[in-house]
Amino acid sequence: MTKPIGVIDSGVGGLTVARELMRQLPQETFIYLGDTLRCPYGPRSEQEVRAFTWQMVNFLLEKNIKMLVVACNTATAYTLNELQEKLSIPVIGVIEPGARAAIKVSQNKRIGVIGTEGTIRSRAYPNALKSIDSSIRVNDLACPPFVPMVEEGMLTGPEAEGVVERTLSPLKKMNHIDTLILGCTHYPLIKDLVQNEMGSHIQVISSGEETAREASLILAYNNLLEKNAEAPVHEFYTTGDMEKFRLVANSWFDEPVRILRPVELHHVQSSAM
Amino acid sequence: MTKPIGVIDSGVGGLTVARELMRQLPQETFIYLGDTLRCPYGPRSEQEVRAFTWQMVNFLLEKNIKMLVVACNTATAYTLNELQEKLSIPVIGVIEPGARAAIKVSQNKRIGVIGTEGTIRSRAYPNALKSIDSSIRVNDLACPPFVPMVEEGMLTGPEAEGVVERTLSPLKKMNHIDTLILGCTHYPLIKDLVQNEMGSHIQVISSGEETAREASLILAYNNLLEKNAEAPVHEFYTTGDMEKFRLVANSWFDEPVRILRPVELHHVQSSAM
Repeated sequence: MTKPIGVIDSGVGGLTVARELMRQLPQETFIYLGDTLRCPYGPRSEQEVRAFTWQMVNFLLEKNIKMLVVACNTATAYTLNELQEKLSIPVIGVIEPGARAAIKVSQNKRIGVIGTEGTIRSRAYPNALKSIDSSIRVNDLACPPFVPMVEEGMLTGPEAEGVVERTLSPLKKMNHIDTLILGCTHYPLIKDLVQNEMGSHIQVISSGEETAREASLILAYNNLLEKNAEAPVHEFYTTGDMEKFRLVANSWFDEPVRILRPVELHHVQSSAM
Repeated sequence: MTKPIGVIDSGVGGLTVARELMRQLPQETFIYLGDTLRCPYGPRSEQEVRAFTWQMVNFLLEKNIKMLVVACNTATAYTLNELQEKLSIPVIGVIEPGARAAIKVSQNKRIGVIGTEGTIRSRAYPNALKSIDSSIRVNDLACPPFVPMVEEGMLTGPEAEGVVERTLSPLKKMNHIDTLILGCTHYPLIKDLVQNEMGSHIQVISSGEETAREASLILAYNNLLEKNAEAPVHEFYTTGDMEKFRLVANSWFDEPVRILRPVELHHVQSSAM
């Protein structure tokens, strides 16, 4: 029987991960849940992020998912270990895939990380990098203006360039990194701006592509790959405004997003909390 | 207690994988065993390759390895499923990592594969690619001259260029692929020649880098990452001439290869066969 893969995010940013998952795993069925109503998670407390994440997870567990992808860096930082311990299905976050990809490409072992306040404060990226190679030096930087900018659709132009330039300047001054991890799923949408600002000698890692690659391996490793090659039908859920979510989703996917139902998470049981 | 990771290969080609494993996992200890005496495996029968591989595996199991990397495409093609079924430790081959990396980077879903006769005949790459995405089209080509050329150290110059040009011409004529998998661990040593011949628009995938990345994930996933950051001491074994192996190994690694003992595999028990 075909079982879906669950993808959760604080809002629309995780759609960049979902898009890569669907591209690299075109035979798999995905259920996406974005907590748009309570986005962004970045400035929230750990307690809040954990509570909201468990609500999303419990909603998806009722859909009989075979794997869970936490497509939000903040939620990954605060809940991944707990989810991996408590759930019987494989759980993948977006932080370790980005860390491993950076280790693969970095030649000088100096790696930059940009993300939300929550992600940077959690030290999840430095911990992930140093658990594999303690000699790696990490320069990280919280970039609070980036998520609102992307959510407003300000992805190009002089104003966006100015925001990126001002925000990244502390990182640019410490000009020793050769690799930069986009530690927030919104950032791939301004990847070109970041690349231009940092310079072409910096390798920029998008967590979405890397997470999809690792999800593919974990599915194969657990013998969970879908054998049926028929075109799957995905489901997208949002806690916020449906039309707004549909507009964003349709602008990011080649095909129109077909199914979209609102869900009120506070009505969902959260027994696993 | 520190447990090593075992790496097996038909000869010296797998050292390209070992080098990447040591670079991306600098806290891990590796034991490398190259069956130089009976190399190449490419033209051998499936039965022979399976028998030789099990002899190597049994030798490494006695060293109490925590994970096995089959760093030889031919051995992976013929024995990976069997090894994964029968061993209680994680077993990683070089074929699936290359396949997943190719799926990640290919935009037009037309992927080329070059390898030994055995690897190409086994259909292992097309099977791995199509099990993830049945719509992928694969152009594969056996390149028998490449392994002897690399083993002889002929890595640059007009003669080597000529061999690469002649060998790849059937693949080049079907000029639709956008990604080419080097499906043999010897080939990364002539990656530049292959890239020049195929053109800069083709993305060339080295299985070694990709396998190391996936080994890193599987270690983390199974909670097997080495926590101790002290510099590990690796061991290299060969069934063939020690000095010849040492020369090749030293030319490929930044630091001299320290320990190297011959082993006669036919004296090793092969009870698991």
